[in-house]
Amino acid sequence: MYLCFDVGGTNIKSGLVDANGTVLAKRKVATRTGGEAEQTFRQFQELREALCNEAKIAPGEIRAASIGIPGFVEMETGRVTRAVNLGWRDVPVAEKASAMLNVPVFVINDANAAALGEMWRGAGKGVNNLLCITIGTGVGGGVITNGRIVNGTHGLAGEIGHFRVKIEGGRPCNCGRTGCLETEASASALAYYGEQAAKAHPKSLLAEQLAREGKVTGKVVAEAARKGDEAARSVLANAAYYLGYALAGAYTVTAPARIVIGGGGAAAGSLLLEPTVRWFHEFTLVDIQKTEIIVPAVLGNDAGIVGLAKLAEMNLLAQ
Amino acid sequence: MYLCFDVGGTNIKSGLVDANGTVLAKRKVATRTGGEAEQTFRQFQELREALCNEAKIAPGEIRAASIGIPGFVEMETGRVTRAVNLGWRDVPVAEKASAMLNVPVFVINDANAAALGEMWRGAGKGVNNLLCITIGTGVGGGVITNGRIVNGTHGLAGEIGHFRVKIEGGRPCNCGRTGCLETEASASALAYYGEQAAKAHPKSLLAEQLAREGKVTGKVVAEAARKGDEAARSVLANAAYYLGYALAGAYTVTAPARIVIGGGGAAAGSLLLEPTVRWFHEFTLVDIQKTEIIVPAVLGNDAGIVGLAKLAEMNLLAQ
Repeated sequence: MYLCFDVGGTNIKSGLVDANGTVLAKRKVATRTGGEAEQTFRQFQELREALCNEAKIAPGEIRAASIGIPGFVEMETGRVTRAVNLGWRDVPVAEKASAMLNVPVFVINDANAAALGEMWRGAGKGVNNLLCITIGTGVGGGVITNGRIVNGTHGLAGEIGHFRVKIEGGRPCNCGRTGCLETEASASALAYYGEQAAKAHPKSLLAEQLAREGKVTGKVVAEAARKGDEAARSVLANAAYYLGYALAGAYTVTAPARIVIGGGGAAAGSLLLEPTVRWFHEFTLVDIQKTEIIVPAVLGNDAGIVGLAKLAEMNLLAQ
Repeated sequence: MYLCFDVGGTNIKSGLVDANGTVLAKRKVATRTGGEAEQTFRQFQELREALCNEAKIAPGEIRAASIGIPGFVEMETGRVTRAVNLGWRDVPVAEKASAMLNVPVFVINDANAAALGEMWRGAGKGVNNLLCITIGTGVGGGVITNGRIVNGTHGLAGEIGHFRVKIEGGRPCNCGRTGCLETEASASALAYYGEQAAKAHPKSLLAEQLAREGKVTGKVVAEAARKGDEAARSVLANAAYYLGYALAGAYTVTAPARIVIGGGGAAAGSLLLEPTVRWFHEFTLVDIQKTEIIVPAVLGNDAGIVGLAKLAEMNLLAQ
């Protein structure tokens, strides 16, 4: 039995997951940010109690806890060097959480946790070379080769969101550079280009939405595109072009058997996926033209906690 | 004692290498191409005899043979699916060579062998996350994560040469696409752009060379640049720009601790390396700005045979 915390900038998704990857209980709470990391550790304690009550198990049955963090993680030490959205810098998460929870604690980047989850019980089942892309506010990524997570120097592996897709003339990115994939294909980018499209096409569904709500979100773009709105479709077409380009570039590095695309920004489904696949094949080696590589994620919000359980199991086995 | 064959389109570099990575004897012969793969296997037998004589050892002291192939290799089976420059397609190399040499035979892509060599005894010593780029006629690459070679689907991992650096308007590549890194930063690309620069700058050293020899090679560009020829330097500057860009993109995938650049096309040394490093940092995450990541290869032509010995050792240990 593993206690899993998938910490995001907005919510903590937590769950009790068994050794088969079955989620016995889960619970989502708002992340208390802006203060000390200790606040979050206290939330872990409260969540443990609630989850144990719900699943009717004693805390003593928990063998380990696993924590996913949206930031740079030193996996060997369980230290978070930087997590911008949480406001954390140099926090010894494994050490502190372990002292509070009295079980071994393992820490991993949240996108890596999702990748492990999809490999174990999701769209990457049976595959040991995998790239997992999460399209949210930003674009995250998890890389698995030879069945193992690639963490990379300073935990930077899988930062596909900062693959530069516009070599010149790109929009500024949160990372301090310009033209990163995140500026073209994240949910925020869909919102940005959605508003541009709304203004350029005053008769579009996007324009109606903008007039009604005062803003456009990635989700709104996806919905309008599904209803056939051309302005919304052009926004998805742009995202798919750069997504296909970046994934083709990434493919030349590890040649994954499967590229799994998930996250809220992937809500547009096949309207985003199909043109992405087309551009991917246009930009990559002719040899792989016929192979189905890019697939949608299947675990949804559970990918993180399922992957966290897998991490705990792999680490306990290796000890 | 391992018998190592680094097969190229032009030469076979062979060597007897011990378990410490010391090369006891080596020999280079022209590759007999255009015919059957069997010709090459016969060359292996001849080379074994010559190497054993030179090192004064009996063939019985050889524990295994390792073969590097410039093409796509299924490492599990030792099968070469395609090796364009050798004219091979679907050759069961391990099976056939093993029957001829009477020892276990392991097969790997040549760029991967060089990467293993550099990790074991070269510029990547002590590092278990490495990207190794070989700038030759084409641009090859080897990727190591968690201390192990990433072979990738269809052996396509590390095909950085086909990372598309010109999303539109690129030159045609041998792979059937356009705008691949190979079309901007290989030795052939240096030669192509060298001739263009010679024509555009009739007073340059490159123009003199073109008039004298009727052609320009990558080596000539490197030499002219060292002598201060501006036309030659602009050719290197272009290659460095795209090399830096592609390496920054590749970095977002596995975040290697070291990127090792070798091969004949890297003969320009720091004149190519320094601007590459500058562009790499310009195009990649601000966080790694201060770190020395890109370094020149140190094993030169021996990287392949040294890495092949490492492969044999790793595989024998795993059996």
